[in-house]
Amino acid sequence: AVPEVVAMQSEAGAAGAIHGALQSGALATTFTSSQGLLLMIPNMYKIAGELTPTVFHVAARTVATHALSIFGDHSDVMATRATGFALLASGSVQEAHDMALIAHAATLGTRVPFLHFFDGFRTSHEVMKIEEIDDERIRTLVPLELVRQHRERALTPDRPVVRGTAQNPDVFFQAREASNPFYDACPALVQDVMDRFAAITGRAYHLFDYHGDPDAERVVVLMGSGAEAAHECVDALCGRGEKVGVLRVRLYRPFDARAFLSALPPSVRAIAVLDRTKEPGAAGEPLYLDVVSALTESTHQDNPRFERIPRVIGGRYGLSGKEFTPAMVKAAFDNLETRKPKTHFTVGIRDDVTHTSLEYDTGFETEPEGGFRALFYGLGSDGTVGANKNSIKIIGEETSFHVQGYFVYDSKKAGSTTLSYLRFGETPIRSTYLFQKAHFVACHHPGFLEQQDVLERALDDAVFLLNTNVHPDRVWESLPRVAQEHIVRKRLRVHVIDAFRVARDAGMGTRINTIMQTCFFAISGVLPRDEAMDCIKRSIEKTYGIKGGAIVSMNHAAVDSTLAALHEVHVPERVESRRELAPVVDARAPEFVQNVTAPIIACLGDDLPVSRMPCDGTFPVGTSRWEKRNIASEIPIWDPQVCIQCGKCAVVCPHAAIRSKVYAPESLANAPDHFQSREVQGKDFKELGEAWRYTIQVAPEDCTGCGICVEICPARSKEVVRH
Amino acid sequence: AVPEVVAMQSEAGAAGAIHGALQSGALATTFTSSQGLLLMIPNMYKIAGELTPTVFHVAARTVATHALSIFGDHSDVMATRATGFALLASGSVQEAHDMALIAHAATLGTRVPFLHFFDGFRTSHEVMKIEEIDDERIRTLVPLELVRQHRERALTPDRPVVRGTAQNPDVFFQAREASNPFYDACPALVQDVMDRFAAITGRAYHLFDYHGDPDAERVVVLMGSGAEAAHECVDALCGRGEKVGVLRVRLYRPFDARAFLSALPPSVRAIAVLDRTKEPGAAGEPLYLDVVSALTESTHQDNPRFERIPRVIGGRYGLSGKEFTPAMVKAAFDNLETRKPKTHFTVGIRDDVTHTSLEYDTGFETEPEGGFRALFYGLGSDGTVGANKNSIKIIGEETSFHVQGYFVYDSKKAGSTTLSYLRFGETPIRSTYLFQKAHFVACHHPGFLEQQDVLERALDDAVFLLNTNVHPDRVWESLPRVAQEHIVRKRLRVHVIDAFRVARDAGMGTRINTIMQTCFFAISGVLPRDEAMDCIKRSIEKTYGIKGGAIVSMNHAAVDSTLAALHEVHVPERVESRRELAPVVDARAPEFVQNVTAPIIACLGDDLPVSRMPCDGTFPVGTSRWEKRNIASEIPIWDPQVCIQCGKCAVVCPHAAIRSKVYAPESLANAPDHFQSREVQGKDFKELGEAWRYTIQVAPEDCTGCGICVEICPARSKEVVRH
Repeated sequence: AVPEVVAMQSEAGAAGAIHGALQSGALATTFTSSQGLLLMIPNMYKIAGELTPTVFHVAARTVATHALSIFGDHSDVMATRATGFALLASGSVQEAHDMALIAHAATLGTRVPFLHFFDGFRTSHEVMKIEEIDDERIRTLVPLELVRQHRERALTPDRPVVRGTAQNPDVFFQAREASNPFYDACPALVQDVMDRFAAITGRAYHLFDYHGDPDAERVVVLMGSGAEAAHECVDALCGRGEKVGVLRVRLYRPFDARAFLSALPPSVRAIAVLDRTKEPGAAGEPLYLDVVSALTESTHQDNPRFERIPRVIGGRYGLSGKEFTPAMVKAAFDNLETRKPKTHFTVGIRDDVTHTSLEYDTGFETEPEGGFRALFYGLGSDGTVGANKNSIKIIGEETSFHVQGYFVYDSKKAGSTTLSYLRFGETPIRSTYLFQKAHFVACHHPGFLEQQDVLERALDDAVFLLNTNVHPDRVWESLPRVAQEHIVRKRLRVHVIDAFRVARDAGMGTRINTIMQTCFFAISGVLPRDEAMDCIKRSIEKTYGIKGGAIVSMNHAAVDSTLAALHEVHVPERVESRRELAPVVDARAPEFVQNVTAPIIACLGDDLPVSRMPCDGTFPVGTSRWEKRNIASEIPIWDPQVCIQCGKCAVVCPHAAIRSKVYAPESLANAPDHFQSREVQGKDFKELGEAWRYTIQVAPEDCTGCGICVEICPARSKEVVRH
Repeated sequence: AVPEVVAMQSEAGAAGAIHGALQSGALATTFTSSQGLLLMIPNMYKIAGELTPTVFHVAARTVATHALSIFGDHSDVMATRATGFALLASGSVQEAHDMALIAHAATLGTRVPFLHFFDGFRTSHEVMKIEEIDDERIRTLVPLELVRQHRERALTPDRPVVRGTAQNPDVFFQAREASNPFYDACPALVQDVMDRFAAITGRAYHLFDYHGDPDAERVVVLMGSGAEAAHECVDALCGRGEKVGVLRVRLYRPFDARAFLSALPPSVRAIAVLDRTKEPGAAGEPLYLDVVSALTESTHQDNPRFERIPRVIGGRYGLSGKEFTPAMVKAAFDNLETRKPKTHFTVGIRDDVTHTSLEYDTGFETEPEGGFRALFYGLGSDGTVGANKNSIKIIGEETSFHVQGYFVYDSKKAGSTTLSYLRFGETPIRSTYLFQKAHFVACHHPGFLEQQDVLERALDDAVFLLNTNVHPDRVWESLPRVAQEHIVRKRLRVHVIDAFRVARDAGMGTRINTIMQTCFFAISGVLPRDEAMDCIKRSIEKTYGIKGGAIVSMNHAAVDSTLAALHEVHVPERVESRRELAPVVDARAPEFVQNVTAPIIACLGDDLPVSRMPCDGTFPVGTSRWEKRNIASEIPIWDPQVCIQCGKCAVVCPHAAIRSKVYAPESLANAPDHFQSREVQGKDFKELGEAWRYTIQVAPEDCTGCGICVEICPARSKEVVRH
């Protein structure tokens, strides 16, 4: 059966609709995040209270507070933990695939509805090679008998019952407790489904999965994608002989304290519970409180798991997609070793206000041996991200490599920097964080080199690919000092291509994605070059086949001409350039812009300490005028002679980078010689006299080079020239 | 300034509107409950994140789960505890008045928004004599300087700032932690406001208020109105030499663990934390988790408060307005004394499914000496509740007595039983529960005596007032056996009045409220009779003066004629009646109706154990046909001779208690002699032939005697006669 997909106007409506669908006996699911999930809360209480099997899949994302954020943490999921839904966490793309099935199978057996969550962006947007479960195996895990029972509980005139009544104080409490057996039974039923899942897929999961030294003394407890980074850190520390481990929470609700305790090694002395959420004013974050309670209660059991109850420390990490690295996990472990561990700490930021943050060693890395990492600087909407997703697919399908792709772009979307982080390797990839150093760095837009330290993350002997219209012989001298320094010191191999020219010549306009992808395969050595070219061409056929043979041929030709246009740059032995990076903002910018806005623009926002941030989300206005992006590779130039002074270009410019002005001739008194103007035309200005002037001015630093002004110009007065 | 009051379409809209009003610099507040509060959650995160002072006043009510309920518990408030709002609890009407001011004063100082809550119905609907705070004292507590600061943070074109932006992973986490100082400072600022409040009112509050033995070994921790019952229980147990106490939580968020620990006597060995909410699948209820965390963390402090950390037990009580009595508090204390205390218990119900419930001694009472308690059985919409509120007002204003009124009516509203619980006395009333035994019982509707054990709650020597149309000399023989038994055994003094006749004679129709109120004052002895009559008359002038002298005179006359119509009944020494209470439902009713519906109808729903309740709120249909309320004191009788067969009466009857039928004459074959019918009229039935019959039949057990059928009847064919 093909499921019916219905788009609702709001998540409140979606929750109501799914409540209704479930009551009619349908197998129904929904997907949401953040505020959307909050709107579902009222219906979630009802759905759970009525013991209705369903699964809500949630890419866990930040709830808006002092600011909105589209990125990932568990604040939305935690806001639902009182509803009576089971909460099941996934930490990777493979797990999200697996737990989705486990949740759907378990909910039918337990009648407790499930919220299955995985980290927004970090997991929801990661590209990863996974093992798919086919329909046949899915079927074996979901007994039709349970589906039949669900359907029989449906509201139908054929077997009428009344549900959704009002109750008074006399019976409500008793009725509320009548659902206890379902919650009591839920964890064991979930484990049973997990066991059956393991039997058909070979992937074994448990309510709580411990990894690390069997005699660990220090353990971190967490859920979601952070557990993968912790896993990597634990492996590294155990390799050094440290007695550490990570306990990964999968079934967070119902919280099975017994299973939790059994999963912990009895040797544990200290535990750091890491919550990816913040509840201001709470005695502690949610998972922390549960762990404290489970351990405290264990001391009163007949055979207590621990002779002496381990010390429990709570911490916050990764709010709104803040990086969470093995170095931060190590900081949590190190904290547990101190005489007075810091509790209710934060990690990943510098809190110089209430001093909650742990120091961490940014040099601590746990990237597995033999992995290959490639970093791409692209411009929003230039096709870089799409091409990289395609490259991952090629490598994932054509080799035995594990692959991972993660893409960072800010919420300015089109026209701002995109960063593509690609990992390949023989060993499974658990690195749920951005890598620090890459074997391959590509800069798809030459402007970035002027603004950022693009090569800072290049490893020694890495390959650097630059798209530039500078002749290969003159590329070296065109580089700023910092880039030359990296290249010389790290012995980088530098390749250049004028991708815009190749694209134009191939009839592809400004679409450089196929060309840059070809360069990557040609020089990275991830695949043998010929094999790689074949793969790209087959992929072009798959992608563009539907658009006709001409488009395919054009792309095929572009691949071939790319190789001819790709040049290695001879690197001298000494740094020669004296050109520094352009200042991020003008020196005249006000203090706030210098201290806060500028580091954010420079991609150094992570380094901003708490004291620099407004406490309530209030920012000064007028800061964007200091952010000159300079991203247009071509800008319009006004030609006063053909201009009909219609002013349309100024109206349509999406970035307000074109202004038209009518002014008295005296204003030109001190104008530079090359300042262009012309007598104003149009009957509205007749009364001013013919001496009045008209100018259209383009702000090159704000123009994105989108070309809409040229398209709209009735006189085609603006000739597009290189910037 | 007179505040502007705006009614919004939904609570989501109200929350958005208040968010906007606050951002414009207004002092703004809103009020809600239950699902309404859930709809406010998204805006609450924003309001708190932006550190915007406001207070939401919440009559805490159950969130709908397996069933909706309009009654009180903390499930709605707990659903907001992640938002960053401060949560401040009140336990009585006086406290709700006081904390409202404290919250408004504190929020301006702390910039943390407040949710001030008090128990829905138990506190929000209780009538209580309180000390009001005048505007002058309110003003001293709210410094204008803080108001000015709030206004200066407003969004205005005069001082533009940008607020409500989007943030990326680089800075969100830091910005989120930037509000920590405000939350850290909040508890001390609240205590400061409480101290200033005490200075101007004499009523001292603390973040946590302890009451009981200074060397208590067992303590209950709770918040809301239940703390009043616990206070009473603690006084009683301390009087017996038990070392117990109650810790009342006032500021629940931010949770000040230090203040919590300081408030606990160091002698405490065991603590029962009582939550008025249930979170299925949680490791424990919210307050319990906080207390466990606070105590566990205290062991790591430099000077730990406790040599040995007290044992903490969690329990649930009072869901959806379930009674919470000193006997239940005692059960919680007793549980702490057992070798293996039951944890995550329930109290107030009998859980025979998962066996969470504590036994409690229903005979344990802590009503203070010298109090007077009066119980009134009324019919929804008959004016009993209103009259009793008026009586409370009279007694509260005319005497030094503390007074309390609480009214129980089920969600059927008009036509079902209302119970008025009135307490008066010289000592302050902390009894936030229904009393078990009354000094005065009034039955405003004789039908109740046939259905319920009305006098079960009469104390020995109590006064019983009955409204009946039976002649005083024949009242005794008209009583069912169980009523006679109570009267004889407890030596009750029985007074009767035919209030409907007095009302009719006085021209007041069926409004018996003034008459019954007069009787109460005449025979209860709460006030001297003459003084009481004066008070009632003055109150009539106040209430009806606006409607003109005639109405006032009519009511005054009714008061006088009431005294003449009030008779004491001679009570024989022996029970003579053999008449039993009518069965609640017909013996032929199905098992579910016998086992579940019938006890609910009989007001014995509190005794239903968990096993009798459907686990998911699903009930069989067709149960209401077994609930025959028999509440009409007069019913319409059909007169076939004058009826024009328009059928309007059957259409308008709100309870579908009138049916009209056209049928073939053969159907009358076995009809009893007195069955009335007539040849059908109307052109639509011509073709049937004149022999076809027409009958209008009234179902006396379902009729409520509302009289709409008579009003609508074009032929006035239905003469209203006594039932």
